Amino acid sequence: MLAFGARDRYNDRMAETQTTQAAPVQFETHPSRYHHWRLEVEGEIARLTMAVDPAHPLRPGYELKLNSYDLAVDIELADAVERLRFEHPQVRAVVVTADIDRVFCSGANIYMLGASSHSFKVNFCKFTNETRLAIEEASRESGLRFLAACKGTTAGGGYELALACDEIVLVDDGSSAVSLPETPLLGVLPGTGGLTRLVDKRKVRRDRADVFCTVAEGIKGKRALEWGLVDALLPRSRFDAGVLERARALAGQVAGVARGPGLELRPLEPSKDGDTIRYRHVELAVDRAARTARLTVSAPTEPPPATAAAMAAQGSDLWALRAFRELRDALYQLRFNVPEVGTVLLHTRGNPAHVIAADRALADAEAAGDGLAREVRLLQARTLKAVDCTARSFFAVVDSGSCFAGSLLELALAADRIYMLDDEDGQVAVHTSPANAGALPTAGGLSRLALRHLARPEMVDKVLGRGAEGPIPTADAEALGIATIVADDIDFDDELRIAVEERASLSPDALTGMEASLRYAGPETLETKIFGRLSAWQNWIFTRPNATGERGALTLYGKPERPSFNWMRT
Amino acid sequence: MLAFGARDRYNDRMAETQTTQAAPVQFETHPSRYHHWRLEVEGEIARLTMAVDPAHPLRPGYELKLNSYDLAVDIELADAVERLRFEHPQVRAVVVTADIDRVFCSGANIYMLGASSHSFKVNFCKFTNETRLAIEEASRESGLRFLAACKGTTAGGGYELALACDEIVLVDDGSSAVSLPETPLLGVLPGTGGLTRLVDKRKVRRDRADVFCTVAEGIKGKRALEWGLVDALLPRSRFDAGVLERARALAGQVAGVARGPGLELRPLEPSKDGDTIRYRHVELAVDRAARTARLTVSAPTEPPPATAAAMAAQGSDLWALRAFRELRDALYQLRFNVPEVGTVLLHTRGNPAHVIAADRALADAEAAGDGLAREVRLLQARTLKAVDCTARSFFAVVDSGSCFAGSLLELALAADRIYMLDDEDGQVAVHTSPANAGALPTAGGLSRLALRHLARPEMVDKVLGRGAEGPIPTADAEALGIATIVADDIDFDDELRIAVEERASLSPDALTGMEASLRYAGPETLETKIFGRLSAWQNWIFTRPNATGERGALTLYGKPERPSFNWMRT
Repeated sequence: MLAFGARDRYNDRMAETQTTQAAPVQFETHPSRYHHWRLEVEGEIARLTMAVDPAHPLRPGYELKLNSYDLAVDIELADAVERLRFEHPQVRAVVVTADIDRVFCSGANIYMLGASSHSFKVNFCKFTNETRLAIEEASRESGLRFLAACKGTTAGGGYELALACDEIVLVDDGSSAVSLPETPLLGVLPGTGGLTRLVDKRKVRRDRADVFCTVAEGIKGKRALEWGLVDALLPRSRFDAGVLERARALAGQVAGVARGPGLELRPLEPSKDGDTIRYRHVELAVDRAARTARLTVSAPTEPPPATAAAMAAQGSDLWALRAFRELRDALYQLRFNVPEVGTVLLHTRGNPAHVIAADRALADAEAAGDGLAREVRLLQARTLKAVDCTARSFFAVVDSGSCFAGSLLELALAADRIYMLDDEDGQVAVHTSPANAGALPTAGGLSRLALRHLARPEMVDKVLGRGAEGPIPTADAEALGIATIVADDIDFDDELRIAVEERASLSPDALTGMEASLRYAGPETLETKIFGRLSAWQNWIFTRPNATGERGALTLYGKPERPSFNWMRT
Repeated sequence: MLAFGARDRYNDRMAETQTTQAAPVQFETHPSRYHHWRLEVEGEIARLTMAVDPAHPLRPGYELKLNSYDLAVDIELADAVERLRFEHPQVRAVVVTADIDRVFCSGANIYMLGASSHSFKVNFCKFTNETRLAIEEASRESGLRFLAACKGTTAGGGYELALACDEIVLVDDGSSAVSLPETPLLGVLPGTGGLTRLVDKRKVRRDRADVFCTVAEGIKGKRALEWGLVDALLPRSRFDAGVLERARALAGQVAGVARGPGLELRPLEPSKDGDTIRYRHVELAVDRAARTARLTVSAPTEPPPATAAAMAAQGSDLWALRAFRELRDALYQLRFNVPEVGTVLLHTRGNPAHVIAADRALADAEAAGDGLAREVRLLQARTLKAVDCTARSFFAVVDSGSCFAGSLLELALAADRIYMLDDEDGQVAVHTSPANAGALPTAGGLSRLALRHLARPEMVDKVLGRGAEGPIPTADAEALGIATIVADDIDFDDELRIAVEERASLSPDALTGMEASLRYAGPETLETKIFGRLSAWQNWIFTRPNATGERGALTLYGKPERPSFNWMRT
């Protein structure tokens, strides 16, 4: 191994502790098991109350004081937002609030960050970013508005959570402020999209944003309102009533958006067998020695339900929903529990006709106004975007018995490369469905086919047209720009094996930067800015001695010593 | 200071060597003094030949073999491109070529990179990026097309230089390839926009780009053409004739674009007095102890020429040209020669009427079809964009005697903050001119006023309307969203002093990431992607032990040992 500095060795040990030796992180939860949030629903208004239990951090070693959060807290938040979408279709507005006196949320827990490996910090930020982006997507697409009711200190990640909401209401009590104190206090950047949302979502004037981000105590009252940092001020005496009134108004804005029918999101209950995790439709098999994993998604085993009513009757057992929830869970397992795996082979198995039928049923139901179908499609889209921002190399393997059809073809199109077997009898093929025509867009807003064919937009219709005629065998898939590498029966296995070995020999950091650059081509959105750009700056700053060195600001936070900086600018 | 790892200490020493103790880097040169390029002009075709002299690196310690380059080489390239724009208005197409047998360019010199400090590496990449972007701007705006004539190995930064050209012609000799071997060979990213240009400019399919960027030997011949990596192949026997033919065709495409009249770019000849550099219109005064600098730009001392002919008669003494060339040189001095300065106070002095007159004369001449006026405006725009991507905090100081008018008001709008004195008699003011209405766009393509007022686009016309009536005194400038901080005579100096002291106490890395995020709000372009995103990934990777640690790939390049990687993915 490398001769790392003391801090790197420490981080390595932490990484091992957090991944191999400690119990793996689990991403499934349920409101009945929440430690840190309360979810209450009353008619069209839901209340999501942050009440972080200091004694229940993800790992021992720090206390979650003052509504500070760690991954455990954010896993519950992500779960709550998703259940609001699927289980509570009557809800139109969500009040995000807290039950600690004079504190809304004080952001990510600094001691947790200080004790975490670089890899964990980066993946923690990625997860929290995905949660915030899901909140914004629910508002934009699903008729579910969010109001941040900040009845006290709203600092760092706390303010970033508020920024992800549609409205921010701050108590006007002469002391409660919103703030992004990361730069002045910790020598890092706000890790959850705060800078981007300030200037690109709320369009705060850049010079004011500069002042705001360097004032550790933040900005309160009229100035916060005037600068556009919050949307309304309410005195403490009228706060709760005023918030409810505004939440009702928000709910009224989206009264026309179809929601539901609701269904219960039941647990996935995977089984574990050594380094293999088996879900119903997904299997993740890890080879730690080779630093590779095989991720297999299977098609429905029977013809899927064709009507909205029949889909709803299956509840969360619906393949289109369950398979993608399983896939997402497997991606999280990869990110947090096996950071040493660099290359992931994407396989699919089963009957393509069933996937195409499932995609078509979903598209038809949504077109007919079914809210559940829309939610399922959006969850599929979020899952595929989670592939894009997972820092592993993905190679899709299209071979005999594979089932890269429709929504599963999207998975191949999300991969860095597609290997296709050119079999003698032309049975190996990919298949299109309505899911390939823009239903599952990338973070930049394009369909995956459009992103692939930026140089030749006319190819998108050619692929879809050819797919409408039937399976697209390897030779055609190559001509249509789907296949990256084509090899015949004699060479295929060797070609793939050598490619995986070569990939596994390259610098993980260079691959991460390379893949992020190549995956996020084309148009930019708030989301691509956050994952493509803000994350990269944060990555860099996290590695700098000024933040995480022995005398760095993040390391020394809460200790009597002052940080000591290398002043060289870059 | 911090307890850095061995490598950091080494880099710190190098940084000192490169900046404080060694002779400062000089950015002015002339074709008669080039060591590494030949510039030949014949009618409408110019030939820019890379012939790097291995024995003339910027610093002793490495040889520039095989047309590899360092900052000294790129300073000459930037000079040549600028002289083509100003001094050779008859030129319509530039052939970029090399005179080494079977080598076009092998990219940035690895030993130079390996021996450079982090700060130097980042600023080197920034400079080379600006040179490439200037080539593309000259093509887009100035009717000057570029053809990369690659008659041999075109590797790394060599291919990135080709990517900046309008056409890439590769010799089809069975061995010459284009390549981006940074990831497989060095564990870093291509540092000069290569990844972004691959997928966003040339729109190479992302899966093919992935293969290309991991194949150290690159791709040659028909496949390079089919994948869109090059635009044409020519056999060695017909190469020179074929290139000339294509260059003539390129020149024909832009025959209608007005160029010239030409002028000679004469040397700036600043004087140095301790830590102060004095140009004719610009002064850079460094306070190393306080880690601050004062950058002052002065207005023309006399009414500027009003016609295109009178402007041309002044040659490169024209204020609008000379002042911005001086300003840009001062920015380069800051970046390379005083990396410890974190905060820059921007001052202006002189008669606003002269600046407004200079801006108006330039706008009028360009509207009447004068090519020189366009070139001067574009150089001003590039200089202001160089402020945006200079990793220092800029505070503009609008006080008594200041002259933030028109093109100099743009300088204030490029700053992170604007401090304005609220004097009793309302004499302190800013002033608008045609230069504020979009003539000097940001990298994202907006005017600086539009970027400032993303949330309230109607404010742009309000500012310009108010400015058309006369000076905009402090109170009005505050109401119009120009001033960040306003203070009266009693408080102004203290307010500014405290702000500078506070700024100077913050982590330089966090400030760099924060400023880059806030400055690049709004629409994205190839240029913002390169500076906002690709640079950030490169920054991060440069700091990682996998690249620059004792056993990192960059460190060990050319040595018998194999690099050793920490495999944790992020």
